[in-house]
Amino acid sequence: MKVGFIGLGKMGGNMTTRLLNDQHEVVVFDPNKEAVQAAADRGANAADSLEDLVVKTETAIFWLMIPSDYVDKELDALLKLVAPESIIIDGGNSDFRLSQQRAEKAKQHNVHFVDIGTSGGVLGIEQGYAMMIGGDTEAVEKITPLVESLAPKDGWYHFGKPGSGHYVKMVHNAIEYGIMESYAEGYRMLREGPIADIDLAAAGKVWQNGSIIESLLNDLTKEALEENPTLEGIEGFVKESGETRWALEVAKEHNLDTPAIQAAFDVRLESQKGKTNFATKLLAAMRNKFGGHAINKEK
Amino acid sequence: MKVGFIGLGKMGGNMTTRLLNDQHEVVVFDPNKEAVQAAADRGANAADSLEDLVVKTETAIFWLMIPSDYVDKELDALLKLVAPESIIIDGGNSDFRLSQQRAEKAKQHNVHFVDIGTSGGVLGIEQGYAMMIGGDTEAVEKITPLVESLAPKDGWYHFGKPGSGHYVKMVHNAIEYGIMESYAEGYRMLREGPIADIDLAAAGKVWQNGSIIESLLNDLTKEALEENPTLEGIEGFVKESGETRWALEVAKEHNLDTPAIQAAFDVRLESQKGKTNFATKLLAAMRNKFGGHAINKEK
Repeated sequence: MKVGFIGLGKMGGNMTTRLLNDQHEVVVFDPNKEAVQAAADRGANAADSLEDLVVKTETAIFWLMIPSDYVDKELDALLKLVAPESIIIDGGNSDFRLSQQRAEKAKQHNVHFVDIGTSGGVLGIEQGYAMMIGGDTEAVEKITPLVESLAPKDGWYHFGKPGSGHYVKMVHNAIEYGIMESYAEGYRMLREGPIADIDLAAAGKVWQNGSIIESLLNDLTKEALEENPTLEGIEGFVKESGETRWALEVAKEHNLDTPAIQAAFDVRLESQKGKTNFATKLLAAMRNKFGGHAINKEK
Repeated sequence: MKVGFIGLGKMGGNMTTRLLNDQHEVVVFDPNKEAVQAAADRGANAADSLEDLVVKTETAIFWLMIPSDYVDKELDALLKLVAPESIIIDGGNSDFRLSQQRAEKAKQHNVHFVDIGTSGGVLGIEQGYAMMIGGDTEAVEKITPLVESLAPKDGWYHFGKPGSGHYVKMVHNAIEYGIMESYAEGYRMLREGPIADIDLAAAGKVWQNGSIIESLLNDLTKEALEENPTLEGIEGFVKESGETRWALEVAKEHNLDTPAIQAAFDVRLESQKGKTNFATKLLAAMRNKFGGHAINKEK
């Protein structure tokens, strides 16, 4: 199936590789010409502008994989270019409330808007990306062959109307913050508690083999601790990237208590103000492991 | 290898099955005669008293798998009966500070005390139990064949002196509280947030296939939601079972911030006072799934 793919960053670049591996035709555009060339070297059809990409994508299916701040600009540009009945997918980390508005705007142009929350980070290229999908059924059915190439079996679901995909992804990220913080607090207790010389990586390994707290995040934490047991060189400033902030806003509006997620969020804000410790260093190490995020300098 | 096994509850009973399956000789005692008979039917050597068990266990290795409140009583009784150089293992959920004291007391009788934090719940019989071990090296080496039969490969580690095993297990349980609470808050946001009719079990399934928050606890949560999507019939009172309370005490003493774990603990206390909701119901459902804990009536 042919798709126009806009955005070839860490996530988008790897996603086009999965699509190409499954014999889809991928037309690519990114302001970064090197990223476009790299995708072309892997078999993608390079476009040199958004206009060019639209012309080359006769299927009229367009996939945005760009920072959330740029979505409105690109969507507006696309809406001026594409034919009626086109499908525009936002696979990035957008606020579901904006996705709902964008779907309305697209509808006025007789264009389908599909929001897909995408998880998997740098591991996704191998194992596939979990995909949480919102949009009208007609459009979601049409793009299913693409989704099946990107997601693992059982790793995607159409949750409902536009916005529902990004909503489930927002909640996913809020849970992620809480889980990461729980591990970080616990590992710090192993390191700085009353018993000296506990091997943290060994604890991570045991917890990964037969214990109730086995998880992908613990596996990555264990790896990080094996490679760098004292987390030397990690400053411990931890960025918040929007979705958990939105989740806490929504929770408050709906009177849903979220004390653990709130605590995890607050720790990140405090870390930005300089309250760093072994736990926040571990959060940075985990983000680096799953997202390829810079370990430092994201203050 | 021959071992005297005291305590045939949900955990102990299954553990003797694993030991018997690996051709160990297991002498068993429990005040519950039915549990003793069941173990005998599986091939264990039944003892009708603690004295009888000690006589029948010439290897002088004794494994306690009993509620933490009974450990001092049983330990004192054993210390009067056993020969010097015996090994007494506490595989239950004891406070590591008491385990340190008990090891000292055992030492005065020239007996080795080994503390083993055991995780895995009702799943352990199949996959093995993660084991976090504290004690002197001589004793731990001696009991290693038993540990290898009970734990998965890479699922056990000798962390250090007596008390260190239960310390690592205490931290494990504190992390577990934080993770469970994070999921519970998130799933509640799916159910009671602004978007109607999100399929929670479907979200759990997607999160289990390619997402960053994949975990055993999410897998069990997904199962619980598939079986009972609205968690009907679950009251939502959630017990705290000691270890996280101890962890918070220790964290405070050592000036280690644990806001997410504290939040998770407080939610359980509040649930006991009647502040129950979909999130606390989900906590109860998870505990039931991994620990076989009663879903209600543990107020």
